[in-house]
Amino acid sequence: MAATTYLPIVERLLAGDRRALARVVTLIENNAPDTRRILAQLHAHGGRAHVVGFTGSPGAGKSTLVTATARELRKRGQRVGIVAIDPSSPFTGGAILGDRIRMMELAGDPNVFIRSMASRGSLGGLAVATRDVVRALDAGGFDTIIIETVGAGQAEVEIVRAAQTVVVVTVPGMGDDIQAIKAGILEIADVFVVNKADRPGADQTAAELRMLMSLDERRKERGWRVPIVKTSAASGEGVPELVDKLAEHIAWLRESGQLASRSGRQARSEMLALLHQALLAKIEATVSPDEWQQLIDEVVDRQRDPYTAADEIARRIGLAPSLGGWE
Amino acid sequence: MAATTYLPIVERLLAGDRRALARVVTLIENNAPDTRRILAQLHAHGGRAHVVGFTGSPGAGKSTLVTATARELRKRGQRVGIVAIDPSSPFTGGAILGDRIRMMELAGDPNVFIRSMASRGSLGGLAVATRDVVRALDAGGFDTIIIETVGAGQAEVEIVRAAQTVVVVTVPGMGDDIQAIKAGILEIADVFVVNKADRPGADQTAAELRMLMSLDERRKERGWRVPIVKTSAASGEGVPELVDKLAEHIAWLRESGQLASRSGRQARSEMLALLHQALLAKIEATVSPDEWQQLIDEVVDRQRDPYTAADEIARRIGLAPSLGGWE
Repeated sequence: MAATTYLPIVERLLAGDRRALARVVTLIENNAPDTRRILAQLHAHGGRAHVVGFTGSPGAGKSTLVTATARELRKRGQRVGIVAIDPSSPFTGGAILGDRIRMMELAGDPNVFIRSMASRGSLGGLAVATRDVVRALDAGGFDTIIIETVGAGQAEVEIVRAAQTVVVVTVPGMGDDIQAIKAGILEIADVFVVNKADRPGADQTAAELRMLMSLDERRKERGWRVPIVKTSAASGEGVPELVDKLAEHIAWLRESGQLASRSGRQARSEMLALLHQALLAKIEATVSPDEWQQLIDEVVDRQRDPYTAADEIARRIGLAPSLGGWE
Repeated sequence: MAATTYLPIVERLLAGDRRALARVVTLIENNAPDTRRILAQLHAHGGRAHVVGFTGSPGAGKSTLVTATARELRKRGQRVGIVAIDPSSPFTGGAILGDRIRMMELAGDPNVFIRSMASRGSLGGLAVATRDVVRALDAGGFDTIIIETVGAGQAEVEIVRAAQTVVVVTVPGMGDDIQAIKAGILEIADVFVVNKADRPGADQTAAELRMLMSLDERRKERGWRVPIVKTSAASGEGVPELVDKLAEHIAWLRESGQLASRSGRQARSEMLALLHQALLAKIEATVSPDEWQQLIDEVVDRQRDPYTAADEIARRIGLAPSLGGWE
C-alpha cells in the first residue's frame, strides 16, 4: 500500500474536499470510464463508517425518520451521509422524489452529504452504484452512512442488505403489510421501528412484531434480540432511542464476530454483481445487434429454442454451454 | 423439425398425458439434469396459449380472483393452467402458501393444472423456472396460463412480465398503495382490477387509476386503453367482464403487431437470464470455495479491492476484466 500513487481526485476526497466527493458520486452515477480506478483506491481507506439501511412500505414516513435520525446523529457530533434510493419505472426511468425535499433542511450543513439515486432501468446496476457511493462516503470520513429506499420491494431489500444495520420501518395498523413483512423483510431487520407511534394501534403493532420475531429461531441462535422502537419522526420522539439502538447493534456486530461474516457475504455478493456486469459488457462487445435480432427472431418463430440460442452466445463469449454441448 | 426424434416424456406430454406434464414440472422445480433437452423440444410446440400474469399488493384478493377467473374460463370451454409464485424469504427458503388452499376447489378438474412455486433463495432462478413451467403447459395444450404472484415486489413484477397480458389487482382505499403503483406497477398493467368492489371507495379508486393512466403518454402512443374492471371475486361479480377484457387484449396484441415485439423482448430477457446462470455455473466449476474465501478475506481486510478481486475471477473464466487490464 505504501508505494501506491493516488489519483489527484482520490487525494482531494481523502483530504475531505466536498467537491471532490460530489464529483466522484456523479462519476459513479454516470458509470464513467475509470471510475473504478478511483473506487479501487478509495476502498483501502474505508471500513470506519457505520452503514445503516432504512426500508419499509411507502407511506411509513421513512424520509422524515431518516431526516430526524440524521439530525440526532449531528447533535452527537457525527458526520452523516444519506443515499436515498428512488425506484424508477422500467420504462420511463423517472424517479419519484416524493418528500425528499424535506431533507433539504439538512442540506446546508457541511457535515451532511445527501444524494438521491434512481435506477434508470437496471436494478443490478443500482445495487452496484449504491455500494460504490457508500464506499466514497466511507473514505470521505462520514461516520454514519444511511441508505434509504422508497419502497420495500425485493430489489430494495437487496440494496439495503449492503448495510451493516438494517432498520425496517412500519406504522400502526399495517394490516396487510404484515404479509409483506413475513415474506422477507422480517428476516433482514436488525431494528424495527413503529413510526407515527402517536396514532392508535402502535402498541398492538409492536406486540405483533414482537410475536413474529419470537418465532424466528435462527435469529435467536445468533444472539441479537431485535429491538422494536416506537418513534414519532415529526415530533422527534423516540429518535434518540433509535440512534442508541443503532450504536448498540454495530457494537454487538463487532464484539460477536458477526461483522466479519456479514462483510464477507457482502463482498461475495458485490463481486458476483461485478461479474454479472462484466458478462453483459462481454456480450455487448461480442454479439452485434443484428446477430441478437436474428437469434431472437428464430426463438420467437420457434425455429430455435432459447436454450440453444443462449448456448450459441455462451460459446462465443467463452462460457460453457448450458446444455453441455448437446445440439 | 421433421427429422426430430422426441424424447418419450415429450411425446407423452404432447399427447396430453397429465402425469408426464406433472413430471416435467417437477424436473424443472428440481433443476434436474437434461430438463432443458425436454424443454428445448417442447418449445417448438408452444405459442398457442394466452399467458396472463396477476400481480398486486398482498391482501388484494388475487388468489380468490384467479380462482374465479379460472372458473369463468372453464365455463367458456378453456383448459387452464395456474402457476402460483410464492416469494420465499432469503434465509429460510420457506414459502407462504396463504390462501392458495382455496384453489383446491379447482384441483379435481382434469382441465385445470395448478402448481405453486417458491424461490428457494434464487429469484433469478425462479423467473427462469416460471418461464419453463409456462412452456410445458403451453406445449401441453392449455389455452390460458395464469401466472400469479403473492406480492408486488420488483422481482415479482419481473416474473409477471413474462406474461402477454398483465393484470394489476388493487382494492378500494389503497391509500399508500398508490405510491407503490406509481413506482413501477402502473406501467406494466394491461388491465386494472379494483377487487372487493363492494367495499366503499371503489369508484374513487377506479377514478384515481383512470387519472394516473391518463398521464402516461407512452401508453397512449401504443394505442391500448387500459381498462379498469371492478370485481368482487368472492361473489363472482365483474369476472366475466374481466375475462372479456383479457380476450380483447390478446386480440389487440395480435392485430397491432405488439405481440411480436413483446415476444422479442421476452426472448431476449430469457436468453440473458440463461446466460447469467451459465456464468454462475462456470464460476462454480472454476473457482474453488477456498479460493473464493481467500479473495473475500482480502477484500474484507482491505488488502484488495472488490473490483480487482472480481477481475481475477473474470480473467480465469475467460471474461474481459472490468478494469480493462489495469492493475
